[in-house]
Amino acid sequence: MQTITLYEKIAEQIIYQIEQGILKPGERILSIRQASLKHKVSISTILHAYLLLENKGIIESRPQSGYYVRLQINALLAEPTLSSPRAISTEVDVSQLVFEVLNAIKRPGIIPLGSPFPGPELFPHQQLNKYIYSIGRHLAPWHAVGDLPPGNQELRRQIARRYLQKGYILSPADIVITAGATEALNLCLQAVTKPGDTIIIESPVFYAVLHAIERLGLKALEIPTHPRQGIDLSALANALKNQQIAACIIMPNFQNPLGSLMPEENKRALIKLLACHEVPLIEDDVYQELYFGDTAPVPAKIYDSKGLVLHCSSFSKTLAPGYRIGWAIPGRFQNRVEQLKLMHTLALPPLPQMAIAEYLAHGAYDRHLRKLRRLFALQMQQMLQTIAESFPLGTKLTRPEGGYVLWVELPAQVKALKLYQLALQHNISIAPGPIFSAQQNYQNFIRLNYGHTWTADYAQAIKTLGRLAARLI
Amino acid sequence: MQTITLYEKIAEQIIYQIEQGILKPGERILSIRQASLKHKVSISTILHAYLLLENKGIIESRPQSGYYVRLQINALLAEPTLSSPRAISTEVDVSQLVFEVLNAIKRPGIIPLGSPFPGPELFPHQQLNKYIYSIGRHLAPWHAVGDLPPGNQELRRQIARRYLQKGYILSPADIVITAGATEALNLCLQAVTKPGDTIIIESPVFYAVLHAIERLGLKALEIPTHPRQGIDLSALANALKNQQIAACIIMPNFQNPLGSLMPEENKRALIKLLACHEVPLIEDDVYQELYFGDTAPVPAKIYDSKGLVLHCSSFSKTLAPGYRIGWAIPGRFQNRVEQLKLMHTLALPPLPQMAIAEYLAHGAYDRHLRKLRRLFALQMQQMLQTIAESFPLGTKLTRPEGGYVLWVELPAQVKALKLYQLALQHNISIAPGPIFSAQQNYQNFIRLNYGHTWTADYAQAIKTLGRLAARLI
Repeated sequence: MQTITLYEKIAEQIIYQIEQGILKPGERILSIRQASLKHKVSISTILHAYLLLENKGIIESRPQSGYYVRLQINALLAEPTLSSPRAISTEVDVSQLVFEVLNAIKRPGIIPLGSPFPGPELFPHQQLNKYIYSIGRHLAPWHAVGDLPPGNQELRRQIARRYLQKGYILSPADIVITAGATEALNLCLQAVTKPGDTIIIESPVFYAVLHAIERLGLKALEIPTHPRQGIDLSALANALKNQQIAACIIMPNFQNPLGSLMPEENKRALIKLLACHEVPLIEDDVYQELYFGDTAPVPAKIYDSKGLVLHCSSFSKTLAPGYRIGWAIPGRFQNRVEQLKLMHTLALPPLPQMAIAEYLAHGAYDRHLRKLRRLFALQMQQMLQTIAESFPLGTKLTRPEGGYVLWVELPAQVKALKLYQLALQHNISIAPGPIFSAQQNYQNFIRLNYGHTWTADYAQAIKTLGRLAARLI
Repeated sequence: MQTITLYEKIAEQIIYQIEQGILKPGERILSIRQASLKHKVSISTILHAYLLLENKGIIESRPQSGYYVRLQINALLAEPTLSSPRAISTEVDVSQLVFEVLNAIKRPGIIPLGSPFPGPELFPHQQLNKYIYSIGRHLAPWHAVGDLPPGNQELRRQIARRYLQKGYILSPADIVITAGATEALNLCLQAVTKPGDTIIIESPVFYAVLHAIERLGLKALEIPTHPRQGIDLSALANALKNQQIAACIIMPNFQNPLGSLMPEENKRALIKLLACHEVPLIEDDVYQELYFGDTAPVPAKIYDSKGLVLHCSSFSKTLAPGYRIGWAIPGRFQNRVEQLKLMHTLALPPLPQMAIAEYLAHGAYDRHLRKLRRLFALQMQQMLQTIAESFPLGTKLTRPEGGYVLWVELPAQVKALKLYQLALQHNISIAPGPIFSAQQNYQNFIRLNYGHTWTADYAQAIKTLGRLAARLI
């Protein structure tokens, strides 16, 4: 599965030429026919390669004219390296700071680079709203009391169908609908732990995971995580050997905040390792659909033969942010998760579930996702470029292959919390590094969101941030 | 506040005459003018008294004809007495059984006497749906990512306005919107406890309270509770003196399942007692609007001068069951509740919140509530009557003055769980007593829901239940 295809090889060559400055932004590249002759491959292979580059925002096609290099990939900006958290488990207490950060993005007129959400203008609200209305008009009254766990049957059927299309066979009965992936994570984590247990997490880690750990009175053990490959498996193996671990929470696909994507053989090895120790894996997979490459990465869940993986996802990042509809596929913990759901929020509103089911059945979800992927890939390039031009020397940047956040390592002197305060004074929100660590590491890191429609205001905000960061050195 | 008004006194006299058999079902009572002369009071006082009796479903007015006794209040059926749970704190584990009971009410064609919801056909779904559609069409995209805690501003303003109309002054900023009262209870309870703490609860108690206690790893101490007056204050005072208590959860108004209504002086004494011990009170007040009397009972929260009361309510029982919108007024624990909300479910969908706010601003909420109250009061009489006619001798029944559930004490030999199983075979769901107790007391009690439109099917179901219960003796 890790073998590189021919068209990917050709795309790689073009990226290399751009990085080396052989091809410059705005320059025309070989036409499809010319490239086909040069590489001695079929027209369709070249088309495939160019489409991939276009999806990544690296080249653009101009009608009647050909393909052009779009933006410079700045080879001068290094990437952050493997993280190195201390190998101790920690009680968690970051909620106050996260609370402030999330409150800040509600300010009117703010540039929400610190937001966890993509731009709300990118979603088919009107279409969903029409479905809500038309379904609501003919809804049998009995439905109106709420869909008890595991949730709306038709929605679970549609979700199962989408997994099926990707080759992952499951039944609607395996799915529990939740109030977003946040609730899914919380329920799954509670289903497999008791207060005082130690949980393995990535480092840096999405703060919602820290919240869940804090709320449930658990301890966190942070494992080094690589900005491209994800969690370090040898460090993980070590931890499992030396300590009693109750569960492991990982985002294999486009980890937040790193954007890392675990290679398939790593996913397989991860599942095998955890199965050996009978440790449940909670897989947060909310960004899987937002890949810039050619095909969707697979969830680790597909390698799970023991029912030990509790897979979580949602529509909040891809279709309907405000609907708060997510799901869990909890494997052997299904019954416990359903019970906890019932105990905490009882039922979920039927209409948003039914509207999403209807959209999945009849809407243009795949077309919408293609649009979103292109846009995010392009906006990532625009943000990378602007950061490269305006941030202080020594800044390091991730190059995610999906999702909509960048992880930025600033020179060691730049304190992210200070920068966060300064930025707020300029009506710019950012997510400071320490909220992504139980140990409050990443003091000189920030996470930036490129999931909003790129405008002059965003470019200006990035420049302002660069200026403020420079001032802190 | 406990003084009885003149028209209540007259209404009481009429009830007495009916109970004594002096007035019989179907008989005409004195006209308003005759009664005014007889009692030597004004016409308007008599009108008031008759309206009260009408609202309670005791008399009915027939156009051009006068007022008639509607249904027999069966004086032969005794009421259950004060409960007597063991004075020990208990770990809680009832969720599996509750889960089964709630799953059963999803069966097609079932008569849902065990349901916790009122009849879904009684709510203004279409009106709310129209609001959702029209608001959704003009919603600024930014709203679409969800209302972070404390929730939608306009909805909080409308809720505050309703409390204000009842003389309870609070600001929208004091309110946290939640996923139904169930989430409000869970968040409030977690805000004031840590695992292992002991919590005081009523006995019998709404099982959602037991769920929250079980989920959070707390212990429950059940206090005797009276079917009319609510929790026994001297038993409560004793418990507070003898044990470390972390919090107290009470439904002062129309307790579920008892229907008990704490007299105002009891509410005041309760608040004073808890304040003395600095013990927080979580007040579940979801049935307050569903009173059969003349005015709404007050929440205990209004006597809270120390910010120790965490008041919880929702629209699920009164306006929009499927919307899952509730709220908490957490007093001094506001910030913690907001944080926990953020940690568990992040945000709430804006559209249902906005639609309810719009309905409160422009809809006919008070008219809708008046209709609901009359209906429930009448249906209670119909169910009481049918039970009196068809249940085995020795059955005892509550006489709630609000809400939509009856608490039925069967002869000691009748095991509620057995009856529950038998009833299911006849496609009738009931709520068996043991799910209302951490100690699994109330083995011969059931809770019945009269909140659904009364039809021949319901009458038949009650008769079947009576027959099945008799068979178990």
